[in-house]
Amino acid sequence: MRPIDFWFSIGSTYSFLTVMRLPVYVREHGVKITWRPFNVRSIMIEQKNIPFADKPSKSAYMWRDIERRAAKYGLSASLPAPYPLQNLALANQVALLGMKEGWGEDYAVATYRRWFQQGEPAGSEPNLSDSLKEIGQDPVRIIEIANSAQIEDALALETEKAKTLGVFGAPSFLVDGEVFWGDDRLDDAVSWARSGRVV
Amino acid sequence: MRPIDFWFSIGSTYSFLTVMRLPVYVREHGVKITWRPFNVRSIMIEQKNIPFADKPSKSAYMWRDIERRAAKYGLSASLPAPYPLQNLALANQVALLGMKEGWGEDYAVATYRRWFQQGEPAGSEPNLSDSLKEIGQDPVRIIEIANSAQIEDALALETEKAKTLGVFGAPSFLVDGEVFWGDDRLDDAVSWARSGRVV
Repeated sequence: MRPIDFWFSIGSTYSFLTVMRLPVYVREHGVKITWRPFNVRSIMIEQKNIPFADKPSKSAYMWRDIERRAAKYGLSASLPAPYPLQNLALANQVALLGMKEGWGEDYAVATYRRWFQQGEPAGSEPNLSDSLKEIGQDPVRIIEIANSAQIEDALALETEKAKTLGVFGAPSFLVDGEVFWGDDRLDDAVSWARSGRVV
Repeated sequence: MRPIDFWFSIGSTYSFLTVMRLPVYVREHGVKITWRPFNVRSIMIEQKNIPFADKPSKSAYMWRDIERRAAKYGLSASLPAPYPLQNLALANQVALLGMKEGWGEDYAVATYRRWFQQGEPAGSEPNLSDSLKEIGQDPVRIIEIANSAQIEDALALETEKAKTLGVFGAPSFLVDGEVFWGDDRLDDAVSWARSGRVV
């Protein structure tokens, strides 16, 4: 089976669905997926890809679509969640540090839950520290490292890598050079990883 | 079962997938779906929703995604197809007349096939006349009526109706006041028609 990379940004609305269902999905489907946080906003601004701002009809649809799909997956959500995030970069710098240290997936789930279920924006207080405490991490230590030039640069590098691979939005699944964009393309990506085609 | 309206525009790329697979899909799933052509371009321009122009990364993805999904559905396609269409309005005025006269679905399939498989833009010659001849209709009579103020106004009215219902893109499925946008939401729409939820 080909490896699958899950490129996501804390700040992306549809990534809520994937982040919340992926831990169960990988167990049930027996697949291994690498979580790769990046800064989707900087790519989208650069590519003039502004899907929701100043588009009330499409925005209203997006929230309703997420609401229906969350119900399908058995996820509770209090929508619309506060959007857009003020501290998208920091939220993902923390996630990147967490992926290096081994607690990144738990943090992503915890911070999305607080954002989409309790209405507390990810990347800001109290969400940031409370999510870290919830998963047994020290907010003071982590926020200091996450704000360092080293982690800032590392996120920029990952974002550049995503762009080079053809990623223009989040969530995206990368398999074998193929981009699968959207939570609704997860099955397609897994199919490609297994057989080199979408079935 | 609640009625399902299929709002589509000849000119929309993803509508290719739905138009081509829908005749078989409705038979296999035992559902009834009403085809409603409209002018998606006028809504998208009005709403500043310009998904592909000047967005090479997203455009490249769109064609690749359609290619993979066409293969999944067993549809052949020669991609990218010529895009955007020059005569989108006329293509859909013909479709609207066809829906009134009973040959609209056959025309939509025929014209998409010529557009996506043979590279002839829909709404222009030779696609327009050849598609009509292929389904046993007289191009001279039909193009004259389709160009009349009556049919122009009727398409504008349908487009206004779509916008009022919350449609911002094509294809869209409307069930029970719910919008389901995208070929990949057809199953969700049918699920909603059957049970009032997405399962």
